[in-house]
Amino acid sequence: MITSQEKLFTKTLKENPKGEVSRNAQLLVRAGYIDKVMAGVYSYLPLGLKVLEKIKNIVREEMDVLGAQEVYMPALTPKELWDTTERWDEIDVLFKLEGAGNKQYALGSTHEEVVTPLVGKFVNSYKDLPLAVYQIQDKFRNEPRAKSGLLRGREFSMKDLYSFHKDEKSLDDFYEKATKAYENIFKRCELDAKIVEASGGVFCKYSHEFQVITPYGEDIIFTCGKCGRSVNKEILESEKCKKCDEKLVEEKAIETGNIFKLGNKFSKAFGLQYVDESGKKQDVIMGCYGIGPSRIMGTIVEVFADEAGLVWPESVSPYDVHVLAIGDDEGVLKKAKEVAEKYSKEGKDVLLDDRNVSAGEKFADSDLLGISSRVVCSKKLLEKNSIEIKKRNSDKVEVVAE
Amino acid sequence: MITSQEKLFTKTLKENPKGEVSRNAQLLVRAGYIDKVMAGVYSYLPLGLKVLEKIKNIVREEMDVLGAQEVYMPALTPKELWDTTERWDEIDVLFKLEGAGNKQYALGSTHEEVVTPLVGKFVNSYKDLPLAVYQIQDKFRNEPRAKSGLLRGREFSMKDLYSFHKDEKSLDDFYEKATKAYENIFKRCELDAKIVEASGGVFCKYSHEFQVITPYGEDIIFTCGKCGRSVNKEILESEKCKKCDEKLVEEKAIETGNIFKLGNKFSKAFGLQYVDESGKKQDVIMGCYGIGPSRIMGTIVEVFADEAGLVWPESVSPYDVHVLAIGDDEGVLKKAKEVAEKYSKEGKDVLLDDRNVSAGEKFADSDLLGISSRVVCSKKLLEKNSIEIKKRNSDKVEVVAE
Repeated sequence: MITSQEKLFTKTLKENPKGEVSRNAQLLVRAGYIDKVMAGVYSYLPLGLKVLEKIKNIVREEMDVLGAQEVYMPALTPKELWDTTERWDEIDVLFKLEGAGNKQYALGSTHEEVVTPLVGKFVNSYKDLPLAVYQIQDKFRNEPRAKSGLLRGREFSMKDLYSFHKDEKSLDDFYEKATKAYENIFKRCELDAKIVEASGGVFCKYSHEFQVITPYGEDIIFTCGKCGRSVNKEILESEKCKKCDEKLVEEKAIETGNIFKLGNKFSKAFGLQYVDESGKKQDVIMGCYGIGPSRIMGTIVEVFADEAGLVWPESVSPYDVHVLAIGDDEGVLKKAKEVAEKYSKEGKDVLLDDRNVSAGEKFADSDLLGISSRVVCSKKLLEKNSIEIKKRNSDKVEVVAE
Repeated sequence: MITSQEKLFTKTLKENPKGEVSRNAQLLVRAGYIDKVMAGVYSYLPLGLKVLEKIKNIVREEMDVLGAQEVYMPALTPKELWDTTERWDEIDVLFKLEGAGNKQYALGSTHEEVVTPLVGKFVNSYKDLPLAVYQIQDKFRNEPRAKSGLLRGREFSMKDLYSFHKDEKSLDDFYEKATKAYENIFKRCELDAKIVEASGGVFCKYSHEFQVITPYGEDIIFTCGKCGRSVNKEILESEKCKKCDEKLVEEKAIETGNIFKLGNKFSKAFGLQYVDESGKKQDVIMGCYGIGPSRIMGTIVEVFADEAGLVWPESVSPYDVHVLAIGDDEGVLKKAKEVAEKYSKEGKDVLLDDRNVSAGEKFADSDLLGISSRVVCSKKLLEKNSIEIKKRNSDKVEVVAE
C-alpha cells in the first residue's frame, strides 16, 4: 500500500503544543499522531492509530500462542458486580455514573467483576480447567492528575488476560508462560523490560511488574548489580539485596505491564467453583495479567525519540518506508512513485512524501515522523540512477543504484 | 487455522436464556456468541467477536475505498464541547458523569463535538478540502428501554464517518458516494437494505436511513409499489406516494445506517472555516454517516436465523467450515483432522468438533452455531472414503469422495 502524504489530513506542528509537559505527548501531538481532547484523553490520528494497532497485534499474537481465547467485554458495568467484590468504594479511580431508572454504573478500570461470572457460566468440572481469556479494550480511570501523555490516561487501551485453574500448581505454570509471553511482546517492541517484584495488594504477597528503565519514568526501582533481582521502591525493605547483600542501584522506570496471582478472591465472591476429581466442589484459582498498548506506545516514544523527533522500531512503525521526492522536478516525483510502487509490491507499507514543499521541510517532517526506513529521490540522485536509503539506528546513508 | 471445539471455553445452552425477549439475543446467548452483562450491554465471546470483527472489516474496507482516513476518538468527552453546540441538555440519551476536580464529562453517543475541532486544527484553505475521517468505536446511549439485544444497546459498536467540504456541491457528490459504499457494505453482509427518507432533525429537511425489512424491526416504513421510494413513518405525510399517487405498503424494518447532511451547524459552533479561492473565510460544510456493526450483527440474526438456530452469510461466518467428527471412532477423528487440515491449507478458518459427545448433540450444536459450511466425517462415510458437505442456503447434502 502507498499513502500519499499530500492527502494525509494531519500536518506537523512547528512547535511543541501548549499544555503538554510530557515528552511523549509533545512529540506525538507535534507529529500529528494524536490529538488532545482533554488531560489524559487523546484521539488517535491515522499515523498514531497505525502504531497502536501494530502494538495491539503483537500483543494479540502472543496471547494466541499462549492459548488464551479473545473476548470483548463492555466498559459500562452495573454497580452490583462491584458490590459483590466490595470494590465499588475501594477502587478510588473508578468512574461512576447513573443511568435511566437510577441505575448505577461504573466504567471498567479492570474486568475481574465481569470476567469471573462470565467464565462461571461455562465452568463446571476440573475438565473445563485450565482456561484463559483476554481482551484488548479501553479502560477508564478517574486519575486526579493526568500529565504524562499516553503514560497515564483517563481513557486508555489495555490488554487484560485472566486465567482460571484448579490449583496453585496450574496457576504457577501458566504464570511462568505468561511471563515469557510478556517478554516476547517487549522484545518485539524492542523494549528492554525488567521483571520487578512489586506489591501484590490485597491478593498476594508479591506481584510482578514489567518496568522499562528511562529517566522519564514515574516509578522507582532498585536492582541488584550482582544477581539482577529488581524490586519496586514501594516494597523495598533494605538498601541491600536480600539475596546477595549487594548494594542496590536506583533507577527511574515506566511500568508497562503487571501480573498478579489472584488466588480465590474473585471466584469466592462470585461463587465460581468446579467439581474436582473426587466429586468435591472447590474454588477456582485465578491469575490476571495486564499490559497497556497505549502505554507501550508512549514508552517507545520516551525511550527512542531523539532531538529531531520520533524514532519507531520496525515492528511498530506506522509505515515500513518513507519515500521522499525532493525538489519540484517531475522526473523525480515519477521516480519516487516507481520506488514506492516497488516497495509496495514487496508487501511494504509506504508513505510517499509527494507534497509541494521545500526539501528542508520534507527532511524535518521525516525526522519528526520517525518512520523506520527512509528513501530519498532527488534530481542529483536521479542523474546517477540512484536512490538514498537510510535505516533507523544507523547514521549511514546508503546510495543504491536503481 | 483450525480451532478445536473441545478447547473452546463457551458451550451452547439447551434453552433460551431467561430475561431475553429479542430473538437475536436469545439465539446469540444460547449459542455462546455473546453474554449479557445487563440490559443492552453484552460481552462478545470468541465466536461473537469473530463475527463482529468481520463486519467491522467489511465496513473498514468500504470506508478505505471511499478515501476516508481512519482515526479513533475517545468515549470520554468534556462537557465544554457539548456546551459549545448546546447539545449537553438536548441529547436525552447522553450518559453524564463527574470526575476528579468536579469535571463534567459525557460518554460519546456521537462524535461531531470531537471531530469538528480536531479537523479544524488541520484545515486552513480550500486546498485542504474535501476530506473525510471515520472511526469504528464504541458508543454509549442511556436508553430507557433496552430489550432488543444487539439492536438497541446502551453500549454498542459504531462506525461514524464525517466529511468536510467547501460547498454543498462537494457534499452532495460525497453523500452519493457514501450511499454507494453503504450499499456495498449491506450487499457484502447479504442484507437487503432499503434507502428510506427520514427526518433530518435540526440539520436539514431529510436524512436517509438504511432499513432492513423484517417483522422483528422496531421502525415502520412505507414504500411505493410503483417507484420504490420509501419513507419513514415519522415523516409520512399522506397514504399515497407523493410522486406516483400509488398506495404505500407498510413494513417493519431495522434501521442499520443513517446518513445526514449537517450543513454548517457544527462548523459554525466551533468556528471551523476555510479560506476560499478569493481569500474569503467560509464555513466548512459537513456530512455525517453512521452504521452500527453490532446492530448489523443483530439484524443478520433476525433476518437469517431459522428454527434450528443461527445462519451466517459466508462473509461474516465466525468460521468458514465446521468439520464434525461423528462417533467415537479413532479413524473418524483422524480423518476429520486431515479434512480440517486440508481446508486450513486452502486458507480457510475451520472449527473442528472433536468433542466426545453424541452425534445428535454435534448436529444440534452445529445447527445452532450456524457456520456457513458443514463437513461431516463418520464411520459409514469413512468406509466409502467419503465426506458429506452441506452449504448454507442449500438443503442438499453432497457426498464427496476424499
